[in-house]
Amino acid sequence: MSSGRFITLEGTEGVGKSTNLRFIESVLQQHQIDYQLTREPGGTPLAEEVRELLLANRDEVVADDAELLLVFAARAQHLESVIRPALAQGRWVLCDRFTDATFAYQGGGRGLSKEMIGSLESMVQRGLQPDLTILLDLPVEIGLARARMRGELDRFENEQMDFFVQVRDAYLERAAADPQRFAVIDASGTLEQVQAQIASVLEHYLQEQAQ
Amino acid sequence: MSSGRFITLEGTEGVGKSTNLRFIESVLQQHQIDYQLTREPGGTPLAEEVRELLLANRDEVVADDAELLLVFAARAQHLESVIRPALAQGRWVLCDRFTDATFAYQGGGRGLSKEMIGSLESMVQRGLQPDLTILLDLPVEIGLARARMRGELDRFENEQMDFFVQVRDAYLERAAADPQRFAVIDASGTLEQVQAQIASVLEHYLQEQAQ
Repeated sequence: MSSGRFITLEGTEGVGKSTNLRFIESVLQQHQIDYQLTREPGGTPLAEEVRELLLANRDEVVADDAELLLVFAARAQHLESVIRPALAQGRWVLCDRFTDATFAYQGGGRGLSKEMIGSLESMVQRGLQPDLTILLDLPVEIGLARARMRGELDRFENEQMDFFVQVRDAYLERAAADPQRFAVIDASGTLEQVQAQIASVLEHYLQEQAQ
Repeated sequence: MSSGRFITLEGTEGVGKSTNLRFIESVLQQHQIDYQLTREPGGTPLAEEVRELLLANRDEVVADDAELLLVFAARAQHLESVIRPALAQGRWVLCDRFTDATFAYQGGGRGLSKEMIGSLESMVQRGLQPDLTILLDLPVEIGLARARMRGELDRFENEQMDFFVQVRDAYLERAAADPQRFAVIDASGTLEQVQAQIASVLEHYLQEQAQ
């Protein structure tokens, strides 16, 4: 039995992650791929409880390093109880956000050092990396305008424009540094245009895997 | 204004931590020391929420590294919002458990590497260490028998004898490696005997600080 593949979807607020996640699922289903859909932070009961702590708006100022450690605590649990077991059984894992989001939000957005994030990454991932990362990219103004039409904002969505510009820049920097793993999708077009790009990336990837 | 002092109290289950914490407070009060009483994991609203996640009995097996990262996330928040500000204002901090407990429980008990714990310690403490650590020591059988008379057990108290033997050993090892900071108290005697030892340690420490 071959090991599964690990696909992650990334992007800032309002890039259309939820809609396009369903589209990616439909492509995997067409190809009869057995996959597990999951998300970060979260993906297990404990990790979802940590997610709630992270997203809650609160009076207490959350220390940047506390936030980072909570993110990696949830990730360690998610890896151990969901991601590694699924991959070991040959299932594919489709995950809404993963460690690239940590480099983008806690690294780019909060300004925490890449070295600190990298050392936690090594500690919990022990070499495991996504096989394919689809990054939905959109100018920050457009994404935020879309996100803010959805209503109630969480602790991250309540951040200012500058924060998201740094998040986007950090995402693009990571994509540029690892073009083999990343597919950057221009998410500013119509849904059809965006999904045509995603379909092309996935078909290409699936062909490679079949060889 | 001089910086405050950071005193921690450590020990396994049933050693009499709560009772002796109140005794330490009474000594500090007699000396008119302005102190802040706090505890780990916890000490801030967010860190107390993390404590609840850690102590809850749950069906889900908690990954050892997830547990460790939750402990340090709570600690990072506690340091930032409570411990560092209090010390900076010249107040003393009396903390029920700190990082020695992590080396004992997650290191000794769970078997996580000291290097991993040490690297998280450096990340969040950035050199800050307790000035005085009082370790209440007791053979594990006696402590557990006492603790289990208290009723409902949390996820840690539900561990087996072996676990606590390793926790105790790890505590004693740390104390032996840093006799300057640690005072090991034999907690097997009567309350009067134990408190006489604690009083002697504190009086000696307070005299030193006054010089």
